[in-house]
Amino acid sequence: MTAHLGLDATVPTTPLATRLAELVRLLPGRLTDPVLGGVVVVASATGVRVASSDHERGFQADLDGLVGSEGSVLVPARPLAETLRSLAEPEVRLVVEGSRLAVRAGRARFALPMMDLAAHPGLAPSPPHRLSVPSAALRGPLAVVAAAASRDDALPVFTGVRLSVEDGVLALLASDRFRLAKAEIPLPGPAEDAADLDVLVPAALLAELSRQLPRSGEVDLRADTDRFALSWEGTLVTTALLATPFPNSDRLFPSDVDCVLRADADELTAAVRRAATFGGGRGLLTLVAEDGGVRVLGSDPTIGESEETVKADVAGNRISRTYQARHLVDALRGFTGRVVELRVPAHERRGSVLTADPGDDGVAVTHLVAPTRPPSPRG
Amino acid sequence: MTAHLGLDATVPTTPLATRLAELVRLLPGRLTDPVLGGVVVVASATGVRVASSDHERGFQADLDGLVGSEGSVLVPARPLAETLRSLAEPEVRLVVEGSRLAVRAGRARFALPMMDLAAHPGLAPSPPHRLSVPSAALRGPLAVVAAAASRDDALPVFTGVRLSVEDGVLALLASDRFRLAKAEIPLPGPAEDAADLDVLVPAALLAELSRQLPRSGEVDLRADTDRFALSWEGTLVTTALLATPFPNSDRLFPSDVDCVLRADADELTAAVRRAATFGGGRGLLTLVAEDGGVRVLGSDPTIGESEETVKADVAGNRISRTYQARHLVDALRGFTGRVVELRVPAHERRGSVLTADPGDDGVAVTHLVAPTRPPSPRG
Repeated sequence: MTAHLGLDATVPTTPLATRLAELVRLLPGRLTDPVLGGVVVVASATGVRVASSDHERGFQADLDGLVGSEGSVLVPARPLAETLRSLAEPEVRLVVEGSRLAVRAGRARFALPMMDLAAHPGLAPSPPHRLSVPSAALRGPLAVVAAAASRDDALPVFTGVRLSVEDGVLALLASDRFRLAKAEIPLPGPAEDAADLDVLVPAALLAELSRQLPRSGEVDLRADTDRFALSWEGTLVTTALLATPFPNSDRLFPSDVDCVLRADADELTAAVRRAATFGGGRGLLTLVAEDGGVRVLGSDPTIGESEETVKADVAGNRISRTYQARHLVDALRGFTGRVVELRVPAHERRGSVLTADPGDDGVAVTHLVAPTRPPSPRG
Repeated sequence: MTAHLGLDATVPTTPLATRLAELVRLLPGRLTDPVLGGVVVVASATGVRVASSDHERGFQADLDGLVGSEGSVLVPARPLAETLRSLAEPEVRLVVEGSRLAVRAGRARFALPMMDLAAHPGLAPSPPHRLSVPSAALRGPLAVVAAAASRDDALPVFTGVRLSVEDGVLALLASDRFRLAKAEIPLPGPAEDAADLDVLVPAALLAELSRQLPRSGEVDLRADTDRFALSWEGTLVTTALLATPFPNSDRLFPSDVDCVLRADADELTAAVRRAATFGGGRGLLTLVAEDGGVRVLGSDPTIGESEETVKADVAGNRISRTYQARHLVDALRGFTGRVVELRVPAHERRGSVLTADPGDDGVAVTHLVAPTRPPSPRG
């Protein structure tokens, strides 16, 4: 990167403000080095780029702009994003004035001190393209699977989402040891470049990106042995991989299903949420299979008891299982507006599977939820 | 209040859920006695009443309902509100079953343990009616004035809103010593009962009530020497008064205005908010009167400088004053969609006045904001 020169560019306000807001959400919460809280602004013949990096993660977005003078500067990212966020003017001019990057809009001028661009790590080069998927098919499953990962850094492997390709299907997989979420996204075409893709990517980043991904268009997945990236519409987000190999999880899925329930996912979710108030200190609730319905039971020593029956098709044995209420709520999020199928194994300690018929886009989501010991009998 | 008997009543879900949510927001944050976290449910020939009280504050709301069996019970308020909040059924049945109050809706049953009704303080009797005002005229000014009060309990007088009646006008007044807000609401008719009204009411409660008041209809103000109450549409909220007399504040309003600015309040608010990012550690910004505009200046040692000019009519001297950014933002909230007038006195230490022509309803809002020492000169 060159030293900052007399950068001067005019950019539409809204896309710049949106990209900067996204960039800021990917900055680390605590800065080990203030320079990592900066945004690199580059004006060149091709337009304007904003970029950030904290060694682990990188963000860059390219924007159309009218460039009067090329140059690169580093300025504090949060105040720039905050200033842009509330500007009503349709365009802003970014221009170096003395030791400041000035943001000029109408009769307003905001001047941000320039930081030492040479001290910034810059953006790691993008890893090579491996495959492309429709953004609409990736967003939902990415959010659901990433939510099943652990937030506890003590066991890094469980803080990641495994992304792998097999037989023309992109599989997303995450677990925090108490539940496991899996999504399978059929690839639209042949993906030779992706044949051996198998990476473990930090789940927290993917959860945030699932919100930033567009509702339509394509997303590119990029990876090499050290890094992973998603790119779409001029935006590129890179991250270091988690090094740990993900344990094989296929054996966790039960083969001896004893009871199968099929219910409207939204109705079941609403009932589970209501029962969660009565989940007690451990936040537990119990599902009981009955003729034509599933009974959702909660019990709390001070708040009282709840019981509610949700219409369901029930096949097999009439079983009863207790789960963490929040595990069920998280798992059911993957099936909004659909019929969800709950498969309960005969063995009391083995996980139950939530799944549904694949959607029109062929995407299949499966959730494995571990049961827990039922609460002590009602008083 | 009688002991709980076999209460049985059917009530429309939405109004019951709304009133319970309001009731819960008025409960104390920390409960000295668990019984104060309860809601009294009374079913009688006239319908269903829900009520709470913590000795200081009381809430009661009357609802239409089909009463099968009269009775009174005390149950935990938060879980009841939480359960009602998410129910889709249009009606719920509240019925005593054993030691529980059951909430039955469709195929769901929620059972809350009954608490000792005899241990509950009950609701203090409502103080007598003093005057009525249109709710639409009270809501906004109440929110704006209550926001100017202090949150610091060490000086109780500044945690209150003074409500007084003089010459057919209801005046609301609050100050945290650094700013003072005043609203004057003309009374629609003669108010003999209100002639000597002069009470100091906890501002935090009034801020919450300004959100609960309906957008139309009348609100009744009730008061005696110890208590104050607002009532509307079957809801009554009572509170103990703050005992301290409010200091006379008329002398604080400057008589020697040196400069008068008139600007669009929304444009000025937006500029002040943007400049607030550059307010520095003390959150200060400076207004400078110029020909045809007011310049809004911010300066922060690390974030940079901002300057923005908002169109304004300027009369008198071209002055410059520095304020707490959040005081200006709070004060400007009272003038949304209007032209705000800023009157700056010649004396540098005296407060500036923000005001506007009274609205169609005759309501006049005035804000006094103390200036502060300007930040050290720009680097």
